[in-house]
Parts: sequence; C-alpha cells; structure tokens
Amino acid sequence: MASVDVGVGLLGYGTVGSAVSRMLAESADEIERATGHRLTVVRALVRDPAKERGFAPDESVLTDDFATLRDDSRVDIVAEVMGGLEPAGGYVRELLRAGKPVVSANKQLVAREGAELFAVASAAGVQLRFEASVCAAVPVVKVLRESLVAENVHRILGIVNGTTNFVLSRMEHGGTYAEALAEAQALGFAEADPADDVSGADAAAKMAILATVAFGSRILLDEVQRRGIEDVQPAHVAAAAAFGMAVRLIGIATLAGSSVDVRVQPAFVERAHPLAGVEGSSNAVVLQGDAIREVTLGGPGAGGVETASAVVADLVSVVGTSGTGFLQNDACWRELPTLDPGTWRASFYVHLDVADQPGVLGHAATTFASHEVSIAQLVQHLEPERAAIDLVLHEAPIGAVEAALDQLAASPEVLGRPFIAPVIAA
Amino acid sequence: MASVDVGVGLLGYGTVGSAVSRMLAESADEIERATGHRLTVVRALVRDPAKERGFAPDESVLTDDFATLRDDSRVDIVAEVMGGLEPAGGYVRELLRAGKPVVSANKQLVAREGAELFAVASAAGVQLRFEASVCAAVPVVKVLRESLVAENVHRILGIVNGTTNFVLSRMEHGGTYAEALAEAQALGFAEADPADDVSGADAAAKMAILATVAFGSRILLDEVQRRGIEDVQPAHVAAAAAFGMAVRLIGIATLAGSSVDVRVQPAFVERAHPLAGVEGSSNAVVLQGDAIREVTLGGPGAGGVETASAVVADLVSVVGTSGTGFLQNDACWRELPTLDPGTWRASFYVHLDVADQPGVLGHAATTFASHEVSIAQLVQHLEPERAAIDLVLHEAPIGAVEAALDQLAASPEVLGRPFIAPVIAA
Repeated sequence: MASVDVGVGLLGYGTVGSAVSRMLAESADEIERATGHRLTVVRALVRDPAKERGFAPDESVLTDDFATLRDDSRVDIVAEVMGGLEPAGGYVRELLRAGKPVVSANKQLVAREGAELFAVASAAGVQLRFEASVCAAVPVVKVLRESLVAENVHRILGIVNGTTNFVLSRMEHGGTYAEALAEAQALGFAEADPADDVSGADAAAKMAILATVAFGSRILLDEVQRRGIEDVQPAHVAAAAAFGMAVRLIGIATLAGSSVDVRVQPAFVERAHPLAGVEGSSNAVVLQGDAIREVTLGGPGAGGVETASAVVADLVSVVGTSGTGFLQNDACWRELPTLDPGTWRASFYVHLDVADQPGVLGHAATTFASHEVSIAQLVQHLEPERAAIDLVLHEAPIGAVEAALDQLAASPEVLGRPFIAPVIAA
Repeated sequence: MASVDVGVGLLGYGTVGSAVSRMLAESADEIERATGHRLTVVRALVRDPAKERGFAPDESVLTDDFATLRDDSRVDIVAEVMGGLEPAGGYVRELLRAGKPVVSANKQLVAREGAELFAVASAAGVQLRFEASVCAAVPVVKVLRESLVAENVHRILGIVNGTTNFVLSRMEHGGTYAEALAEAQALGFAEADPADDVSGADAAAKMAILATVAFGSRILLDEVQRRGIEDVQPAHVAAAAAFGMAVRLIGIATLAGSSVDVRVQPAFVERAHPLAGVEGSSNAVVLQGDAIREVTLGGPGAGGVETASAVVADLVSVVGTSGTGFLQNDACWRELPTLDPGTWRASFYVHLDVADQPGVLGHAATTFASHEVSIAQLVQHLEPERAAIDLVLHEAPIGAVEAALDQLAASPEVLGRPFIAPVIAA
C-alpha cells in the first residue's frame, strides 16, 4: 500500500508537545508500517518562537499566529497540547469547523466543553479524540468507545488521581495526611499548590469525561459529587487495615436505571479488589458491563511522555479511521437525568469519635436504626477520656446514612464530624 | 450520516456464535450510533442446521455449505467462531482472498498460522482481527496494535490462563495441587481433561500471539519455552508467602536487543506487583514500553459471552476502519532471532530438599558460586530426617542456574528434583 503523507499541527510545544514531536519522529517507520501513513509535524503554535525547547523543530515550523497554522493546507490533523480553556477551546472549534480532525490532551476543556465540541466535530464530519485527557497512557477512552461499544457499561470505578493515591498509600505505612503530602511534594508527585488534587477536583473532571463517554450522556462537572482526602486521618487508615481494606480516593460513575450518578470521595476498598492494590501515583479504572463483567486498566496516569504517548495513539487512530465514520458521531447522544444524590446506595464505613460514657453506643445504634440503616460490623476502641467507633454498615441510601450522622453529630456525646466512606467490595 | 447496512457471516453457531448473534441484535442501535453501520447476521455456517440452538436465527440464515456463505454477496464481513485448525483455517484463507475481512476467536489457529494469515489478509487488502483469541474480553490486542503502535513494547508479563490461576490462588488457602485442581473441576473452572491448561500449553499459545503482535515478528508456538504447574508443591506456595510473594503461572515475552524470548512457567511474584493480586480465574497482562512504562489490563479471560464481546468489538472496529489502511498491513514485518534460552536473565527462587547432614548447605552455596550465581536470601527448614532450603538468587542467566541445579541434583544429599521459578519484582 502506498504511503500517505500526513501533516500534523501542534497547538503548544511544551513538555507534552515536544514529547509528541519526538515520538512521531522516532516512531515514524512503525506508524507508517501499521497505518500506511507517514506523520510529520509541519506547524506548531507557540507563544514565543524564539524560546529554547526540547527536541526543537525546524524554525520554519514554529509560529505564534493561530491563523497561520489553521490556514496551512499541509496541516491535516491537529494535536492540542497547550491546555487551558481559552484560547484552546476556540482554536479547537475553529479547526473542527474547518474540517481538521483534532486530538486533545486537555482535561479541563473536554470536561467542561466536551459535549459542545463533540457536536461541532460530528456536524463537521471529523474526529475529536481525547485519550490523553484522562489517565495519560492508560487507554481507557479507546477501550470504552471502541472495544465496549456494544457492552452497556453501567459502572466505572477509578483511581484517576496519582497525587492522592500516593498520599493515601503512603499513609498506610504510618504518618499523617500532612506528612504524606509533604513527602509527595518533596518527591515531585504533588504540586506546591495541591488543592486541585487533594480536593478531588482533578478526579472529578476525569470522571465526568469517562461517564460522558460510557453513558453517552453529558455529565456536567458541577454534577459530580466530590469530597477530597483532606479529612482522612491515620485512625481511618488503621480502621481500613483492620477491616481488610485500603483507603483510596475513588471515582464512581453509576448508570442506575436511566439516571446517572458520578461522585469522587475517599472509599474503603476491600484488599482483594483490583483497586486496593494500586500503589503510589498509578491510576487504574474498572469498567463493569454486561458481558465483560469487569475489565481493569491500569498504568501511569500522568507525566509528559506518558501523555504524549496517548496523543500519538490518538493521531494514529484518526489517520487510520478517518473517512469511514468510526467515532465521527456525537459521543453524547442522549440526555439522562442525574440521580437524586441522596438515593445513591452503597455499604458505608463510618467513624465516630464519642465521649466515653454509658449509653453512647446504644444511642448510635438506635439512631442508625431509626433511619433504617443497619450495622454489619462494629469495633469500639477506648482512648483517653473518649472512644472511637468504627462501623461498617449494610447497603443503604447515602441520604439515610448522612441523616443519621447529622443527628448523631448534633448530640453532645459525639465529638467532631463523623467520617463516612463507601465500601468497595471485592 | 446515513447508515450503512453490513451483513455479517458467522462460521459456527455454538456458545460463542449464538452470543455474538444475540449481542449484535441487542446492541444494533448502539453500534449504528457509534459507527454509522448497522450489523446484521445474514449467514451462519453450521454442521447441522436442524439442531436446536440458543438465540436461534431465522432458518434461512443457517447453511451447512461453506460455499453458500462465501458466495453470498450480502456477507460483508465474517466472524470465525468455530475453532479448530481445519477446516477453519482454510475457510479463513478463502474468505480473506475473496476480499472479506475476518474476525477470529480461534487461539490455536492464530497461534499456529497467524503469520501466514496476516500475510494473506495484507495481500488482499482486508483486515484480520483476533482480539477474542487471547484473554476473551480483555482488549489487549487492540491496545497493543493501536494505542501502543509507537511505543516499542519490549516486555509482556501475563496471567493468561484462568484455570491455573484459580488452582494456584486456591493453594494459597491451603491444600495440594491435586485438591485445588479437583475443586476447580467441580466448580467448572477446569476441564475434565485439564492437560492443555496445567501444562502451560494454552498459555503458551496466547503468549505466542501477544509476542508476535507486540514485537512484529513471528513467534512459533514451538519456540515458547514452557513448564506447567503440576510440580508446584504446598511448600513452594508457603515459601512464596514467607518471601512476600505469590506463585502464579506467568507468561513472559521479552525483546532483548534484537532477540526474542517467550516462556511460560510458575513464577514468584512480589505481592506489590499488579499480577500478584490477580485472583481466581481472572486474566491480566502487563505491557512494558518506553513511554508508558507499564500498562496493565485485566478481566475475564474466558467464557462464551466474554469471548463474544471481543468478537463484536472486532466487528465494530473493522466496519469502522475498513478502506483506510489502518491495521491492513502485515503484523509480522520482521524476523527476529530467538534468544538462546539459557542466556535469559532473571532473579530466581529455588527450592531444594536435602538430607539433614553436615556440609549440605555449604555444598549448595559453593555449587551456585562456581556457576557465578549469587544468593540473595536463604531460609532452611528442618523436617523429619531432611531439610528444605528456599533460596532467592540474584539475577543470573537461567542456563547458569540450571547448570548449578543439575550438578546439585546429581549429588546424593540432594533429594528429588530442585524446583526453580523466576522472581517477578514489583
């Protein structure tokens, strides 16, 4: 088969962009062999063409003028690796409308404007791929959209943020949240300002993208319930270990009947579950469907080269499939309502700090019972002048459990806020 | 985009075939939405059209004459779900030459004749896909061929046989190999004749396919070194636990320089490694490459519906990509030599049963040293009138370790055959 030359445009030439450029150059033969297309970077949009860069392209490739890239007839496909909502979003829309397929690594853009962008791409009859926007090198978007298209995936469980997973795995070996976070920062696994990670915001954006693709319905970022890891205490980590579980920040997307629920929070994962074994800064996603039962994908969820690997895979997939309709239709084809958050059901772990006085345990048990929440396991530890109660509850709506906890928190013998985490059974 | 009708032919209509048929019917809308193609089974080749079947097709669909299916102009694509080398292989070749893309679930056929079939498909300019031939619902072939095409995957570690993984996980909870195998048979995880599984032959065929795809070079089934799990003793499982490891049947494919090595054997896997947590009859594959570092895929590796899910994914991928060159080129594009098996390097676990007499330990240590093999960890247990020695060796060529073991086995104080297993570090 004769080789076809394909010109690649890059929006951005930073860490990811230069890694994409290097990978395309170094793997040009492999890509041509597999696809019959030879990919070459012909244009790259940068803010300052004079700046020093890794794997610097020929000077004539760089431009600081978007129109120059957009109107360059040699540009057949564009990789957006600049990040940020604007001007990236506007550029991507213009390119799609101009009939150029786009590959994006931009999590914020896809999470916030994915549905509009999919519609623009679909109307223009070109592809928009975004593997690199979720979990970097882990090919979860491709598997969801291509391997599992006939699968009715109804639940996604994911460890989709490496920083929080590093912190929580580290806490298993002792130490507080603050100590583990400081270590993550010292080792470069956490940013100086880790707010986006530890609050669950980063994980929420990724889960919104995955749920949108899996369920074919737009999930707004604001619809994702989220709680971060800031209030995870060594006592919770120890309780998890005692119950044969591990604490992990887990994204859970559920298609319940025809309603959708997406949430991110610390969860207690049974040791035999695939996600309990995910250590350090790795990511892993579990996809549950009718026929496949449960498929798990894991690997490095961040990093410049790892992200570039996903960008290149998308470029290869686009040149291999353009013109035949595959994945050119809108990924959001229905509008599913959001599940009333309080009706979401799970088994829960609950930690209560209580005054060491008669009747407290009975009061807690009675309060749960009055909300029709029943207790599966209970361990009480005496501490100086107080007691800690660790409970695992039978499956119940989270609204009922939270109502019981609100009632308990208002009583004087319960000290501080109760801690709650869903249990992920193996 | 206007929908295109695609006629599907099935070779075989047994457990997998009827599940494919059902899935295509039930997911026709989802597939059409994603690909713009409406897939309908129009022909199915069976031995006895009168036989009762699950999800029975319209009588006019069934035929016992291959030529009727081959020459039916409505058949645009064929799924081979009949199994066996012949007549399946001949049918697939004829169909490819006739310009019909083929999807195959046939592990034996792809492992033994894959390279020839890829060449036939490439010459005819049509696709041959075979996701279902390895690990059923786990999309490892697609990820290798599409997501990782530019990745230089140089090592594959896999648990690719559910029966042996069930038996070995079961032995961790006590019991002998024979007891665990009997339990697997009672639960339906193992065949009445489990020889193909426990000998490693089934795993070897899957590893041959994965290595062929990953390295682009034909791996003959006979070139796969293999040892089964029949000689795994409770003492080995206990030793693994004591070293913080688990015994698993692991396929290991290595691209070492420009040579290839593929082997299947019981291995000692460190507990923190993703493969150590694979329990029961699940499968998992670890792909190591330059940029991705390590991507892990896991899920059900067998079962009719699970296999059908992979067949349907392949059908969808073919209709989504035909005509554009993607994956139409030969997957075997080079001929790499096989590594001299004795030069393959790893850290090894070794178990020796020895007479309880002075000098035995020194003799063992001296023998290893004379082959330039050094000892990392050693535990000796006294048993009635004998001793068991468990060793973990530093990385060394397997040939040197085996030569040392041969020498030790020949000395009267070493009782029975030493047991050897590579160590998979986390």
